[in-house]
Amino acid sequence: MKHVYLFEEGSRDMKDLLGGKGANLAEMTKIGIPVPPGFTITTEVCKIFCDEGNYPSAFADQLGLKIRELEEKMGKKLGDASDPLLVSVRSGAAVSMPGMMDTVLNLGLNDETVKGLAEKSGSHRFALDCYRRFIQMFGDVVMEVSHDKFEEALTAKKKEAGVESDTDLNANDLKELVEEFKEIILDNKGVSFPTNPLEQLKYSIEAVFKSWGNPRAVTYRKLNGIVGLPGTAVNVQAMVFGNMGLESGTGVAFTRDPSTGEKEFFGEFLMNAQGEDVVAGTRTPNPISELKTERPHIYNELFEFQEKLEKHYKDMQDLEFTIEDGKLWLLQTRNGKRTTQSAVKIACDMYDEGLITKEEALMMVDANQLGQLLHPQISPNANADSVARGLPASPGAASGRVVFTADDAHEWASRDEKVILVRKETSPEDIHGMYAASGILTSQGGMTSHAAVVCRGMGKCCVAGASDIMVNAKGKKIVIGDTVINEGDVITLNGTKGEVYLGEVATVEPKVSGDFGRLMEWADQVRKMEVRTNADAPEDCKVALKFGAEGIGLCRTEHMFFDEERIHIVRKMILSKDDEVRAKALAELMPFQRDDFVGIFKVMEARPVVVRLLDPPLHEFLPEDAGIISRLAEELGYKVGEIKAIISNLHEVNPMLGHRGCRLGITYPDIYEMQVEAICEAAISVSRDCEFDVNVEIEIPLVSEANELKILRKVVEEKISEFGNRINFNYKIGTMIELPRACLTADQIARHADFFSFGTNDLTQTTYGISRDDLGKFIPSYIDKGVFQADPMEGIDLDGVGKLMKICVELARKDDPSFEIGICGEQGGESNSVKFCKKIGLNYVSCSPYRIPVARLAAAQAEIVNA
Amino acid sequence: MKHVYLFEEGSRDMKDLLGGKGANLAEMTKIGIPVPPGFTITTEVCKIFCDEGNYPSAFADQLGLKIRELEEKMGKKLGDASDPLLVSVRSGAAVSMPGMMDTVLNLGLNDETVKGLAEKSGSHRFALDCYRRFIQMFGDVVMEVSHDKFEEALTAKKKEAGVESDTDLNANDLKELVEEFKEIILDNKGVSFPTNPLEQLKYSIEAVFKSWGNPRAVTYRKLNGIVGLPGTAVNVQAMVFGNMGLESGTGVAFTRDPSTGEKEFFGEFLMNAQGEDVVAGTRTPNPISELKTERPHIYNELFEFQEKLEKHYKDMQDLEFTIEDGKLWLLQTRNGKRTTQSAVKIACDMYDEGLITKEEALMMVDANQLGQLLHPQISPNANADSVARGLPASPGAASGRVVFTADDAHEWASRDEKVILVRKETSPEDIHGMYAASGILTSQGGMTSHAAVVCRGMGKCCVAGASDIMVNAKGKKIVIGDTVINEGDVITLNGTKGEVYLGEVATVEPKVSGDFGRLMEWADQVRKMEVRTNADAPEDCKVALKFGAEGIGLCRTEHMFFDEERIHIVRKMILSKDDEVRAKALAELMPFQRDDFVGIFKVMEARPVVVRLLDPPLHEFLPEDAGIISRLAEELGYKVGEIKAIISNLHEVNPMLGHRGCRLGITYPDIYEMQVEAICEAAISVSRDCEFDVNVEIEIPLVSEANELKILRKVVEEKISEFGNRINFNYKIGTMIELPRACLTADQIARHADFFSFGTNDLTQTTYGISRDDLGKFIPSYIDKGVFQADPMEGIDLDGVGKLMKICVELARKDDPSFEIGICGEQGGESNSVKFCKKIGLNYVSCSPYRIPVARLAAAQAEIVNA
Repeated sequence: MKHVYLFEEGSRDMKDLLGGKGANLAEMTKIGIPVPPGFTITTEVCKIFCDEGNYPSAFADQLGLKIRELEEKMGKKLGDASDPLLVSVRSGAAVSMPGMMDTVLNLGLNDETVKGLAEKSGSHRFALDCYRRFIQMFGDVVMEVSHDKFEEALTAKKKEAGVESDTDLNANDLKELVEEFKEIILDNKGVSFPTNPLEQLKYSIEAVFKSWGNPRAVTYRKLNGIVGLPGTAVNVQAMVFGNMGLESGTGVAFTRDPSTGEKEFFGEFLMNAQGEDVVAGTRTPNPISELKTERPHIYNELFEFQEKLEKHYKDMQDLEFTIEDGKLWLLQTRNGKRTTQSAVKIACDMYDEGLITKEEALMMVDANQLGQLLHPQISPNANADSVARGLPASPGAASGRVVFTADDAHEWASRDEKVILVRKETSPEDIHGMYAASGILTSQGGMTSHAAVVCRGMGKCCVAGASDIMVNAKGKKIVIGDTVINEGDVITLNGTKGEVYLGEVATVEPKVSGDFGRLMEWADQVRKMEVRTNADAPEDCKVALKFGAEGIGLCRTEHMFFDEERIHIVRKMILSKDDEVRAKALAELMPFQRDDFVGIFKVMEARPVVVRLLDPPLHEFLPEDAGIISRLAEELGYKVGEIKAIISNLHEVNPMLGHRGCRLGITYPDIYEMQVEAICEAAISVSRDCEFDVNVEIEIPLVSEANELKILRKVVEEKISEFGNRINFNYKIGTMIELPRACLTADQIARHADFFSFGTNDLTQTTYGISRDDLGKFIPSYIDKGVFQADPMEGIDLDGVGKLMKICVELARKDDPSFEIGICGEQGGESNSVKFCKKIGLNYVSCSPYRIPVARLAAAQAEIVNA
Repeated sequence: MKHVYLFEEGSRDMKDLLGGKGANLAEMTKIGIPVPPGFTITTEVCKIFCDEGNYPSAFADQLGLKIRELEEKMGKKLGDASDPLLVSVRSGAAVSMPGMMDTVLNLGLNDETVKGLAEKSGSHRFALDCYRRFIQMFGDVVMEVSHDKFEEALTAKKKEAGVESDTDLNANDLKELVEEFKEIILDNKGVSFPTNPLEQLKYSIEAVFKSWGNPRAVTYRKLNGIVGLPGTAVNVQAMVFGNMGLESGTGVAFTRDPSTGEKEFFGEFLMNAQGEDVVAGTRTPNPISELKTERPHIYNELFEFQEKLEKHYKDMQDLEFTIEDGKLWLLQTRNGKRTTQSAVKIACDMYDEGLITKEEALMMVDANQLGQLLHPQISPNANADSVARGLPASPGAASGRVVFTADDAHEWASRDEKVILVRKETSPEDIHGMYAASGILTSQGGMTSHAAVVCRGMGKCCVAGASDIMVNAKGKKIVIGDTVINEGDVITLNGTKGEVYLGEVATVEPKVSGDFGRLMEWADQVRKMEVRTNADAPEDCKVALKFGAEGIGLCRTEHMFFDEERIHIVRKMILSKDDEVRAKALAELMPFQRDDFVGIFKVMEARPVVVRLLDPPLHEFLPEDAGIISRLAEELGYKVGEIKAIISNLHEVNPMLGHRGCRLGITYPDIYEMQVEAICEAAISVSRDCEFDVNVEIEIPLVSEANELKILRKVVEEKISEFGNRINFNYKIGTMIELPRACLTADQIARHADFFSFGTNDLTQTTYGISRDDLGKFIPSYIDKGVFQADPMEGIDLDGVGKLMKICVELARKDDPSFEIGICGEQGGESNSVKFCKKIGLNYVSCSPYRIPVARLAAAQAEIVNA
């Protein structure tokens, strides 16, 4: 097996083997860009080294051969005292992990070769500067001597010499420094700095390989979801020197502006410097435009190369270059990171320039980041320090005065105060306060807690589960360590990052440019999977349609019960002593629900609307307020003690796994009958009065066993049949698939269903055995320790939840391959999840209105990838 | 297809097609037992009739043919006015459903044929008695006229005639009654009673088929878990008459005593009667011994037949016979129902008699019922009416005075009072009271609620989830409708049936006979699957060993924390402000846990002991008592408000899905480290002092992701490695599989485990999305409506949970087919579940001590069935 590749032997397609840097160095070499010669040791060698602790048997010979080939090409030899070959040793995995792994520059220097370098370069000072840099870097990276020790010695030397900058140290200072650095190594490690260049190389390669497994790199991969890579490649490359004098320099550049996407060559450079000086920030680099004025021929060459590279790679490039004594060398090219806004612009511009196809343009934008374009954001210029961190539950930014109850939020907001509602956790009773607030902050709950889900639905900024704040609602204050925030104090939330700031912090309204709209149109042309929205009210539906929703994938009917006028009736219904009172309460509720549905159907027109029948446990509707309780007791003819006992009896130990969903429908079929009646009345009247027929899909929640659906389907059908030939709309009856058992018995359940819709929030909770309301207590620790790479509620867990979904789809479509299956969990608006949904053949994804563009783009990308 | 079989054409192997009764009539015919001739219409005809509403096309012709064959054989014809053939029409499915479906006797009579019958039998009275019986039965069963109407007319007639008994009515009375019965039918149905015998037969067959779907039959099948049957067969058989005079009679008999199992021919008979008279109880039947004295030749013949049948069927038989004018006919034989005690005795006796093999003996006892032999039971002679019903959570019976707190239970019991502890639900804090009480009654919680699990573990009677009782612990009373039970009142619990009685009800101590021991020995010879116990204390272990446990499959370490002395330390550990206090508390706890393990290891000797590390959420350990809270605040340096806030912050919305199990291990590794230290110290000292080496399996609970186990395995291993070469015992490190995701990613998890153990309690809860603590609210309704056939916690749900288990076993053993997998959920002691565990290849089942004999027998039966 070939373990080492000259740059001439590789290409951009070999990223897995040569790493991103190595593959791109090879590609540049191939297309005639000036790259200092070198070779790449493959990622497979790293894997074997890390797994087994030693190298493949053929490696040493191959390495020796490539060194000799490099020496021949350069006409220089490692360790040659008169004209030494110096090399850099750089890491580079298949996926970029900037700054995470180790690099050694100027390798090959020792007390002998430094003299040769001095002679050849004509500068003692330069040669000694390289030498001290090498010892410093080798000592830090390879020999693991603390970086600080060298920096201390350097600082002392500058003081001693009475100079400010490293560049002001003279040859003698540097010579002394070299000796001091050597001693630092000897003192700290008990061994001398190795003088043999081959030994230096061997140790450096090992150090790079080992850096693959350092905690920083491991954490980085975890945080960024980088899995399945064998290891890092190692690039050994002839040194070119940006620090060889005033005609030398180094810089970085982007082929377009990474912030705005403008087609404008963009970058910075420093003369007489090595790359690390730019990074370290000790000297301020100059904008690339100055290079154009000062050294136009170099600028022109660089400009030509960047144009060539962008055209070749068909993407915006991020370049590193070095000028050695007037000659331009390129050291790296890669696809440049960019803001979402610029990604959209670049994709559209490149399509207009004829550089890429629509499909390529669509693939160029990270779907998950699209949400950033739809919410106001904390200004990038704001210099605010966060006082607490939580989960970035709903993106955007909001400032306002702190209040602690939904009623206060409502009241203050009605006085035109902007407020932030702060709760331990929110519940459906808080909805009116959540509508009134500019943002929501909770100390408990995860990415799919009530607060998070509702806020994303409303497009409202939310920081959830900020576990280091103590919410004292009674005392109307928040305590964060020593900081106390009282009612009325102004705070600012950053829902995009999950941060909380004191006072008001400036925000910006991002522009949703025309390019965004074009990209969305292209996505719609390409995608085949439908995109629906989760929406419970006509206003939400309008927002969703604006963002491109093609139907409602989940309309939760319970939110309709929380209106002040209605909740009292709901409570009477739940607590009634006899069937008559109960039936009366249900009859009172019906017109409210009917009118809600009329509103929704009118907005959605003929688009499909999935209406989920009552889902949450009944106790969620019950009051805690003593006054309300006594009023109810009086109206229903109870003693207060009795009604309290009934309410307490409705309490559940694990309400998520309790008496809810279709279990309510089985025990209280009259509730579902009322809801179906309301749906029918509404659909009949809208279909009659408008120019379209309503398409409603009646959804039974939380089915775990086919009999549940069989019985409730009959309840629904019988209610519908009461309308006889008044039925003038289209309907289906189906179920939400949100429990493992429903997936495992999907064939049995499908016999009684016209459609399925995955409720991946609950499915994830039960598959993992994790409550989204409680995970805040251990998820931070889980992410820190790398147990989970992310909150499991964020995207579909392919290993577990995804496997169940696949089983479900296969079973459900055993007899009818066209059986309709969608998804309405929050994950329906997460890019990777959408792609998975396409892969297993779902008909649609449904998500909160503000996630719809994400879903549209992800669905298009899935189509392109599958094709 | 053949739809109708003469008895000569069938055999006992054709139960599925001919039903149990039909197959046995055929078999008796085959082996020369006198059976009135007849034929059987198959269960498939029933299925087609029920599904499609009409008969298979060939059916009518086949039926006609068989009727003619029967007529020829009998030398009589249906409807022949001079010598009519009369027949019975009886249902009979493959599984016996006694009394659930319909029967019509004396079919073929009308105003003409009754005369022929009178002439041929020489008795007008007899013929008219048959006629009125026929009209009555036909009217009730086929024409659906209320039974009561006929009974009223009969009673009136007896009054009019001035007689007591039906048999005292004379021919004239009966003639009048026949006319009255006909009028009842006409009045109630508007149509006349059909006189054509073929029409009578057609309607009767239809009625039997329809009775397959009557609610009574459907419910019976649901309650008894009878599924997958096509329908009932119909047996049409020439009538023989037990009511033809003083030389006629009818009776039922068992080949052995069904209560005790004694080998003694056992039965009852009535002369001059039809079978319904015996059943109706209007006349008291005589013991079979009287037949021996009165009609020895008939007795001898019957005795000979019963011997022949028992030998032929190799099982205790339940017979029906009729004597017609001195001739003995057998009308039915089937395997007799028996008590568990008699089942054990019969199995052993039959083996000793050389009638059956050990394997057949083992198959003859229902494993699930074995538990009955191990607990005191409500006396079968007690005539107590239950005042409330709950779930039969832990079998047995107990009487005592009602108390409402664990402390009261403890205190009263220490005064030698027998008490019943009544709670809404129990928690680990109640353990001392549960130990002290004779029985436990709860108003909430299911078959695997805390109360249920702990009681079964203790072998203590428990009725759980008695939802119609209102427990008012403050007021120290129970309210059940109008009944109030106060503290100190005596009640009796029947944990076998789930019933509650007022006052003390007599109980009996069943004898665990020597036969039981023999059967267990045979089971151990046959079974290959190991049987372990779930036990947390040396006393439980001793009981378990007595019942045959071969190891501990689950030792829960948290129960060890609830002792009064320890709970305070545990609380300090949880609530401590700084790591030092916390570490000190853990160090204080260690010796307690160590000593617990020493006790257990000493009892279990070298047997494997699975020790589960801490599992429940921490808040379960925290106090609610204000006094305790202030003491803790003082000791730990908090303000009371602060400590209350911390305690409230530990509260979870869904604790079952919260911060528990290995999630605690990840966030607080020091707890697990302390536990491992205690295990090691204990195992080292016991292995050193005794003649065996301890075998401990350290189990990490609630793993949903391989990384959790990977990290915690390292924690455990590092702690063990601290003991260096002091380790003188054997250990494994593994995990409990109790979440769907663990099953779905079992291959990944198995890489870090030496063993798996299914925790099917939690696995069932998460697969169904049902909390065992909350299911009481809807499960009764679910069972009533046939959604579930039983509480899903009772046995492994093969369609859902079982499928996950199968996936898990396959994935886990992909690389290592010998990978150890067991089960420790309560289902490990349920017969069908044990059989399923064998089928998927588990190494052992583990259950509470009192279920061990069930598991041993079920494991043996599984082996026999698989072979």
